[in-house]
Amino acid sequence: MAEETQKKKLSIIAFSGDFDKLTAVFTLATGAAAVGYEVNLFFTFWGLDALKIKQGRSPVGKGFLPKVFGIFMGGLRSAPVSRLNFFGASPKIFRYMMRKNNVAPLEELVEAAKVLGINFYACEMAMHILGLQKSDFIPEVKDVLGVATFLQLSEGGQTLFI
Amino acid sequence: MAEETQKKKLSIIAFSGDFDKLTAVFTLATGAAAVGYEVNLFFTFWGLDALKIKQGRSPVGKGFLPKVFGIFMGGLRSAPVSRLNFFGASPKIFRYMMRKNNVAPLEELVEAAKVLGINFYACEMAMHILGLQKSDFIPEVKDVLGVATFLQLSEGGQTLFI
Amino acid sequence: MAEETQKKKLSIIAFSGDFDKLTAVFTLATGAAAVGYEVNLFFTFWGLDALKIKQGRSPVGKGFLPKVFGIFMGGLRSAPVSRLNFFGASPKIFRYMMRKNNVAPLEELVEAAKVLGINFYACEMAMHILGLQKSDFIPEVKDVLGVATFLQLSEGGQTLFI
Repeated sequence: MAEETQKKKLSIIAFSGDFDKLTAVFTLATGAAAVGYEVNLFFTFWGLDALKIKQGRSPVGKGFLPKVFGIFMGGLRSAPVSRLNFFGASPKIFRYMMRKNNVAPLEELVEAAKVLGINFYACEMAMHILGLQKSDFIPEVKDVLGVATFLQLSEGGQTLFI
Repeated sequence: MAEETQKKKLSIIAFSGDFDKLTAVFTLATGAAAVGYEVNLFFTFWGLDALKIKQGRSPVGKGFLPKVFGIFMGGLRSAPVSRLNFFGASPKIFRYMMRKNNVAPLEELVEAAKVLGINFYACEMAMHILGLQKSDFIPEVKDVLGVATFLQLSEGGQTLFI
Repeated sequence: MAEETQKKKLSIIAFSGDFDKLTAVFTLATGAAAVGYEVNLFFTFWGLDALKIKQGRSPVGKGFLPKVFGIFMGGLRSAPVSRLNFFGASPKIFRYMMRKNNVAPLEELVEAAKVLGINFYACEMAMHILGLQKSDFIPEVKDVLGVATFLQLSEGGQTLFI
């Protein structure tokens, strides 16, 4: 009985920083939350970029090496498209087509995700590698987690790696 | 009891248009269907390409921008390999090796998927972005779905994002 | 009752040969095994590379075509990073940062996976395509499997495609 009344759950490990894949993450997340799912987004590696406060090609952390990575992690506005990316032209075309066809662009999907109460988590290990702190992220990031805690949160639902 | 007699389920969100990843999608799908699984394939973004009727580098929709995307979405015969793709040489090598080693090539896997009664669905939102209509796809496409319906269909089984 | 005492399960289809994605595979796998999960890793396509005995850019099989693929499948030490890979510089930077920040580098994660009793499986079909034999792999590879057996093993747990 108790099981039946449990909320359905969708958990996504957001690994990619590509514009199209991040769009997929937030489309699935908001779509699920809109029909009552508990949604957990666990951002790791390049996906952490979506959570950064300062959008733009700024250093991701302190020191030289994080700076090197920072060049490639420029936040949502500069996220490349995984398949085709002509010197940054494709995300713009994508965005244009999304707007033209009345599909919510990525930033709006992120806003919707916040409003819908979707849980944002950041991966502890990837933050260590990339030299990022919790204070580098938007305040909606609920917690910094390791693998074990994420698995516990996602248990019993559908889990995707994107 | 009723639960025990329910069919096992495999659902795949086919996002990639890469030859090797599409091969993985159809290998998993046909392998699962062959041992009695209900299989749901939800094609989205670049994966929609696998469903197009006209194979070849034709425009994906009407208007200028869909044309730009069409150049990169040329159907199964021109699907690139995700990791190595020398001016289109790799898919050919891959195909050759599949044939040489008696592994069903992609087109045959797609045919097998149809015969095995695998469910093909197209993602509504991605169709909007890319300017595609249901009539652009093979008739085996059962329906055009949003995220909520797909989640409902895939609930209780294994779900993969490829 | 019996169900409640069953071990939780994490299964990963390791498709990618990219350094960052392989790091994600082994981080998730060891993290799950450390908290008592049964972990099944099913290596396929480029992921098979992680299982090869001879690390280095050696031919993956016998004959000319496997040799062509072999050039791109050079084992863990030469695994490229999916997003940024400047003539092999990035995996080295990645490795350096992992070491500097006290995160276990990939080889150590693989060693940990063995010690933790994680199950390594190789995909039969991909081995055929790439001309690989079981004897090409590390002895920890428990078995060569097809899709049906893998689905059976992973049933009832969380399954990811990476």
